[in-house]
Amino acid sequence: MSDPSVAAASSAPDAAVKYVYDFAEGSRDMSELLGGKGANVAEMTRVLGAERVPAGFTITTEACVAYMAAGGEEPPGLSEQVADALDRLEEHTGKRLGDAEDPLLVSVRSGARESMPGMLDTVLNLGLNDESVEGLAAVTENPRFAWDSYRRFVQMFGNVVRGVAGERFEEQIARVKRERGVRLDTELDVDALRELTRAFRSFYDFPQDPQEQLRQAIDAVFDSWTGERAVSYRRINRIPDDWGTAVNVQQMVFGNKGDTSGSGVAFSRDEVTGAPEPSGDFLANAQGEDVVSGVRNTRDITELADVMPDAHKQLMEILRTLERHYKDMQDTEFTVEEGRLYMLQTRDAKRPAQAAVRFAVDAVKEELLTREEALMTIDADRLDALLHPTFDPSFEYDVLAQGVAASPGAAKGEIVFTAAEAVEAAAHKRAVILVRPFTEADDVAGFHAARGILTSEGGKASHAALVARGMGRPCVSGASTLEIDLGAEQVKVGDVVLGRGDRIAIDGSTGAVTLDDVPLVQPRVSGEFETVLGWADGLRRLGVRTNADTPDDAIRAREFGAEGIGLCRTEHMFLAEGRAEKMRAVILAADEDERRERLAELRPLQQDDFEGLFDAMRGLPVTIRLLDPPLHEFLPARLDVQHEVERARSEQSDDLEELETLLERVSALEETNPMLGTRGCRLGILYPEIYEMQVEAIALAFAAVRERSGEAPDLEIMIPLVDYEKELELMRELVVRTMTEPGLAEGKDFTVGTMIELPRACLQADRIAEFADFFSFGTNDLTQTALGFSRDDVEGKFIPIYIERKIVDRSPFDTIDAPGVGQLVRMGAWLGRKAKLDLQLGVCGEHGGDPTSIDFFHNSGIDYVSCSPFRVPIARVAAAQAAVRA
Amino acid sequence: MSDPSVAAASSAPDAAVKYVYDFAEGSRDMSELLGGKGANVAEMTRVLGAERVPAGFTITTEACVAYMAAGGEEPPGLSEQVADALDRLEEHTGKRLGDAEDPLLVSVRSGARESMPGMLDTVLNLGLNDESVEGLAAVTENPRFAWDSYRRFVQMFGNVVRGVAGERFEEQIARVKRERGVRLDTELDVDALRELTRAFRSFYDFPQDPQEQLRQAIDAVFDSWTGERAVSYRRINRIPDDWGTAVNVQQMVFGNKGDTSGSGVAFSRDEVTGAPEPSGDFLANAQGEDVVSGVRNTRDITELADVMPDAHKQLMEILRTLERHYKDMQDTEFTVEEGRLYMLQTRDAKRPAQAAVRFAVDAVKEELLTREEALMTIDADRLDALLHPTFDPSFEYDVLAQGVAASPGAAKGEIVFTAAEAVEAAAHKRAVILVRPFTEADDVAGFHAARGILTSEGGKASHAALVARGMGRPCVSGASTLEIDLGAEQVKVGDVVLGRGDRIAIDGSTGAVTLDDVPLVQPRVSGEFETVLGWADGLRRLGVRTNADTPDDAIRAREFGAEGIGLCRTEHMFLAEGRAEKMRAVILAADEDERRERLAELRPLQQDDFEGLFDAMRGLPVTIRLLDPPLHEFLPARLDVQHEVERARSEQSDDLEELETLLERVSALEETNPMLGTRGCRLGILYPEIYEMQVEAIALAFAAVRERSGEAPDLEIMIPLVDYEKELELMRELVVRTMTEPGLAEGKDFTVGTMIELPRACLQADRIAEFADFFSFGTNDLTQTALGFSRDDVEGKFIPIYIERKIVDRSPFDTIDAPGVGQLVRMGAWLGRKAKLDLQLGVCGEHGGDPTSIDFFHNSGIDYVSCSPFRVPIARVAAAQAAVRA
Repeated sequence: MSDPSVAAASSAPDAAVKYVYDFAEGSRDMSELLGGKGANVAEMTRVLGAERVPAGFTITTEACVAYMAAGGEEPPGLSEQVADALDRLEEHTGKRLGDAEDPLLVSVRSGARESMPGMLDTVLNLGLNDESVEGLAAVTENPRFAWDSYRRFVQMFGNVVRGVAGERFEEQIARVKRERGVRLDTELDVDALRELTRAFRSFYDFPQDPQEQLRQAIDAVFDSWTGERAVSYRRINRIPDDWGTAVNVQQMVFGNKGDTSGSGVAFSRDEVTGAPEPSGDFLANAQGEDVVSGVRNTRDITELADVMPDAHKQLMEILRTLERHYKDMQDTEFTVEEGRLYMLQTRDAKRPAQAAVRFAVDAVKEELLTREEALMTIDADRLDALLHPTFDPSFEYDVLAQGVAASPGAAKGEIVFTAAEAVEAAAHKRAVILVRPFTEADDVAGFHAARGILTSEGGKASHAALVARGMGRPCVSGASTLEIDLGAEQVKVGDVVLGRGDRIAIDGSTGAVTLDDVPLVQPRVSGEFETVLGWADGLRRLGVRTNADTPDDAIRAREFGAEGIGLCRTEHMFLAEGRAEKMRAVILAADEDERRERLAELRPLQQDDFEGLFDAMRGLPVTIRLLDPPLHEFLPARLDVQHEVERARSEQSDDLEELETLLERVSALEETNPMLGTRGCRLGILYPEIYEMQVEAIALAFAAVRERSGEAPDLEIMIPLVDYEKELELMRELVVRTMTEPGLAEGKDFTVGTMIELPRACLQADRIAEFADFFSFGTNDLTQTALGFSRDDVEGKFIPIYIERKIVDRSPFDTIDAPGVGQLVRMGAWLGRKAKLDLQLGVCGEHGGDPTSIDFFHNSGIDYVSCSPFRVPIARVAAAQAAVRA
Repeated sequence: MSDPSVAAASSAPDAAVKYVYDFAEGSRDMSELLGGKGANVAEMTRVLGAERVPAGFTITTEACVAYMAAGGEEPPGLSEQVADALDRLEEHTGKRLGDAEDPLLVSVRSGARESMPGMLDTVLNLGLNDESVEGLAAVTENPRFAWDSYRRFVQMFGNVVRGVAGERFEEQIARVKRERGVRLDTELDVDALRELTRAFRSFYDFPQDPQEQLRQAIDAVFDSWTGERAVSYRRINRIPDDWGTAVNVQQMVFGNKGDTSGSGVAFSRDEVTGAPEPSGDFLANAQGEDVVSGVRNTRDITELADVMPDAHKQLMEILRTLERHYKDMQDTEFTVEEGRLYMLQTRDAKRPAQAAVRFAVDAVKEELLTREEALMTIDADRLDALLHPTFDPSFEYDVLAQGVAASPGAAKGEIVFTAAEAVEAAAHKRAVILVRPFTEADDVAGFHAARGILTSEGGKASHAALVARGMGRPCVSGASTLEIDLGAEQVKVGDVVLGRGDRIAIDGSTGAVTLDDVPLVQPRVSGEFETVLGWADGLRRLGVRTNADTPDDAIRAREFGAEGIGLCRTEHMFLAEGRAEKMRAVILAADEDERRERLAELRPLQQDDFEGLFDAMRGLPVTIRLLDPPLHEFLPARLDVQHEVERARSEQSDDLEELETLLERVSALEETNPMLGTRGCRLGILYPEIYEMQVEAIALAFAAVRERSGEAPDLEIMIPLVDYEKELELMRELVVRTMTEPGLAEGKDFTVGTMIELPRACLQADRIAEFADFFSFGTNDLTQTALGFSRDDVEGKFIPIYIERKIVDRSPFDTIDAPGVGQLVRMGAWLGRKAKLDLQLGVCGEHGGDPTSIDFFHNSGIDYVSCSPFRVPIARVAAAQAAVRA
């Protein structure tokens, strides 16, 4: 390779590819190529000047990709480019790698496009060998430091690059300490360190040649990208495997050269509260690793002013400079070497919701950012934490089981197994958690009464999750290690057996379940949050409504800024106490006449519900969806009835005949795939009297509220699950006929529209639009049908495996599947508007509260999204971000 | 109205609309406007000359539509145009309506665009009144004829136009006959007829004015379009309500003027066999109504030669002329009036399948038609009858219940309630019908053993229907009036109670169920049919394959002309005897290792199956779909296991533990919506070892057959239920890896493709095509997902009501829903071919055997359709017709 013509020939095909960049060459825009760390160090070098940032160079992610593609071979040209960069580094620092007099030492660190803390490997103090260690000792006049550095390097190299088990080194250290009768590492003298270094070297073939050390270290970083830790981190954090990592080779600086040295981390603002004072920790006479490892107790960054006042002053200035430059809160690492401050790293600080909001508001006040910019620094999804109690983040607890984070917020209470127990406990002001394998319509009363819901089955879109989110109740679903035996009233988790009344705590924001008495932190909706929401409202184009079925929900949502109701599921009104029985009587009616009689009993109750809702939403639009679920949801489970029948038969009980009728009806209504069965407008076509009753109740409630208060909502009546335009035509006819009877005017007092939630409806949206004043995309059901995914069945079962096998990067029920379901939404929107230019378009699926999906809807010409009350503030912010982004 | 200026003013807006056409003005292309009868009479007038066809005029369907739109008011201008046409008719005939000397009499008949036999009203002898009856008597010198005609007219007018109940007239006739001591109508003399006429007139306000008679009669025909009979006929025959009917006013001719007169119907060829000799019936001295009513015994048309040789000769010539002109077999009505032959009607003859085939072949031989033309005269859907036994059409039987015509063919046998009983009965050569509420995988063994299947639930796409059609077993499904109590081994229908062993007969071509011992007619696959199929093969572009899972099916399908297997459902192989248990062991395996062990036991069995299939299909393509259904389909029902557990528990039985494990597994695999759950390639991703076993079995079978016979099929391995291209990529990898291990070559020995059966797959077909050599559209499941229709739940339940309410005109499972599902197929085909120009495109849903759907697929760029063996000949003909049509 020393013959340049040979090198040129062998690397000819890739001769043009630049794999190595000096820090001075890069910038923050290059993070795809240089990784986050490389790009930031380069940027820092630009901003703070070369003297503040130890010099070095970055080997690109492209080199790593080429290395992986070649099955672990460095691409042609790379070693030459590294050698050249090293030459330049040696020239810049005036030191040489492996120099026997005054050696250059370097760190070799990974740095992917996105931060993957602790997941990739790092080698420090590279360049030491038997010769240069003496040079380091001489030039620093600190043999112990030199030998400790050498010992650390041989250990780290052996462990990271050569895969020697860490404990083998630890055993030796323990042995030597024992033999020498010392307790602390720092008590080991030069001689002991020499002995240890020798011992460590015997574990593997330690390369004395610093060039070889560097080559091996670089390859080790590349290899660490495909290591188990990194792969699983990427899976969790949805980072693509094919990005690869960059490698940063940087001159070492030492915070462990005595009392005028030190290392630390510093945030430009308080990383928990967002308050404008910088925060952080440092250790004097220590390397960065010591600060992070937590072995020694760190000191607060303010104390740095006492110990090293100049460095502190410089650091404070630098933090401000960086923040102004990056226009975001910064998270930095620094080292002070004999009084001189070096900045090793900076990045945008991760922060909890309250800090994010505080920073955004302060940054605008300080004129650091515009409102638009400030808004974009907030992770909308995390704002959830501001709206629910959470586990105290500083409290450590044992996780009993891990489920799906199904509805945010934390709750504690006694275990109950039935809705009835929950209701009773609530009446006695006892806090309970409703624990069930899964929940059904019948359990809903228990949701109100319980502090939280815990299920062993189902996922984020299970019944339990949906209802809990709608109500703002914390819920952990699909905690599959729980074996819940309702008959025995027991929950088993491994050896732990819990019964009724045992206390349990759940965190619906993380999915954790624990027996520990974790303190709960109550949410604070700060003035700053209000400010941010105000900006959002000024910036967004998308309307934000709420999915609400009760006056309570509606009032809360309105407080959260909802601009109306986008989805009122009228069936929930049939589940309240005293109504389930009446609804059951409707379904069990022998003929239409009897059904109408029974419905007449329900009507005043439903009217009451509507009045409450309309009162709460006066002046705003309210979309009421007529009955949607299959009727059997209002009946008990077949198996239960069967048992009842058997019992009645054996006891020769009086209610046998009644139970047999019930069983017959339950069996007749049973469906193989209820999701695709007799529901939605199909019910309205089969049993028009049900829809008629609902529409009558709506009309009466509307008239009553308007008369009482002089103001009513903008009423929108929605027909669910339409496939054919004729279905909507028939149902529209029914609605208009029933509404106009008491004198309400179509178009003025109410409009009629449909939910678009079947693929066919999207494909035929132009025909359907002829009979619709509005569309509301039901993206939950559209996801189920377009993908053939029953959310009850797939979320817990194979979606996790699909994520693991990289078929999807997240559940399509969390974020809209843009290429499939999303295109159907766009097709529906386009065809609908093609047929009717002023057709109103909304989204009322769960996706209406998901920021990524909201961005998609913003760009699909949708007019508004509708989400559960607790997601309304998030949707407002996300909608504004979408507008700014566009 | 007599003032022309007033008439002109009132009819001004529609003055330009021509509502009335003389027969001489029309032609057969005008059937939309003139109705079928009007257009044909006009055409006949053109072809045969005015002297052969009684003159008259047609009032257009547009007039009827306008009449309906105006709520039963004649449109302006109509009455004037009718008056003008009547003037022309009077001039042509030299007679006047209502003339006291020699009156013109006319018939007023309906005639819709499509024939609706007997559904619309007709009035004969119009123009008679108290005066003109005497003229008729004088001019015919036949007072009895005149008074009988008058009596008939007053009766018919009262009944048809004025709605007087028919029995009131019959009572009078009976009374007069009683009083006069006569038995037959023909024995009534002039006096008696006078008395009757008088009595009839007293029932209503009979209009003496012939113009008024005509106006009322025309309106009555219009009104009959919306009568109950007509509406229900249209519903059954899928005729749109808004077509309206035309009205034909035609000079009466009389076949009842003595022995040189007569009436009859004549077909240009034998209407049952298609043999080239004309067939038909006639009655001397009779009107057409007498021939049709069946009151008198008609005589064969050949006897006409003896009675009226000239008329017979003319008729034979006319039939040939008409056939040559219409290029199709004709069905005519004629009258001979005093030796003169009049043709009253001609239309393309409806004919059973064998006659259709015979005619087509003869017509080509006779050079009457080209092959293309001949092929188009065949109703492909009816060819089914040639492939299955049917009820003897001449036998009259009582219908016990009416179900869905789920799988064609008729069968008789004793009732059995379980598959096991069916198998046992078959072993004793007893013919049985398997009767169940619905069927499941477990029942399939019984399908082989039974002569036919009868269910009370489900529709054309229920499990029973699908499996029965695949096997060619007759099946009636969804006979919902049957109450089947499996526990009591009873079937109740109203008061009838049937038990095991009772004989029953079903006709799967009509859906009829009867207790009568109906003779069965065996199918004849004639040489003519072979000829037609040969033409079809020469003309069609679409390939025709079969869906077959067993060597028997494959052999039969190949005999029927299948060009390969388009869909082999491998799961059916797991259901055969001795395999279900092994498959169950696979599913119950505790871990992957045990599962692999159990699978290894299944592999040789599956290999055997494949060898049989490959042997049968050597040299042709065979598409094998890897396991598709959810695993719980191979396990017993949860309820049954639960009962078993309870039994075992109470009996302290040894198998309790085993049963509890089974229950646990069954519960764990249970799904809310199995259609949208863990099935298709999701299984292959979760349990790759299952697919690996299947692919190994395929590879081994392929190699064995090739070695043994030197020839193998073109192997196509198909991955079901793909949503994401990554799924196919992973499964393709698995297939290729497993196949290439024993040395088979990708692309040469086998290809890999996917079923496109989810909306998302259609939308992302270009991405999916990257990993597919072929697509096969699974339009059954695509219909279920695109429309949100679970076929198990909707076919019996709301599709009939949807047809009744005119939301759909047929089940989307019978004929592809072109605007929805069809567009997804087209999108998938387009995107797939966009990405891969030579991508092979097939259809393997039930629609592959439906002529209307085949036409759609032909026009969507599909390469082949695949259908059950018995539909293969139909698909060949339908594919050729699609090609000719295009």
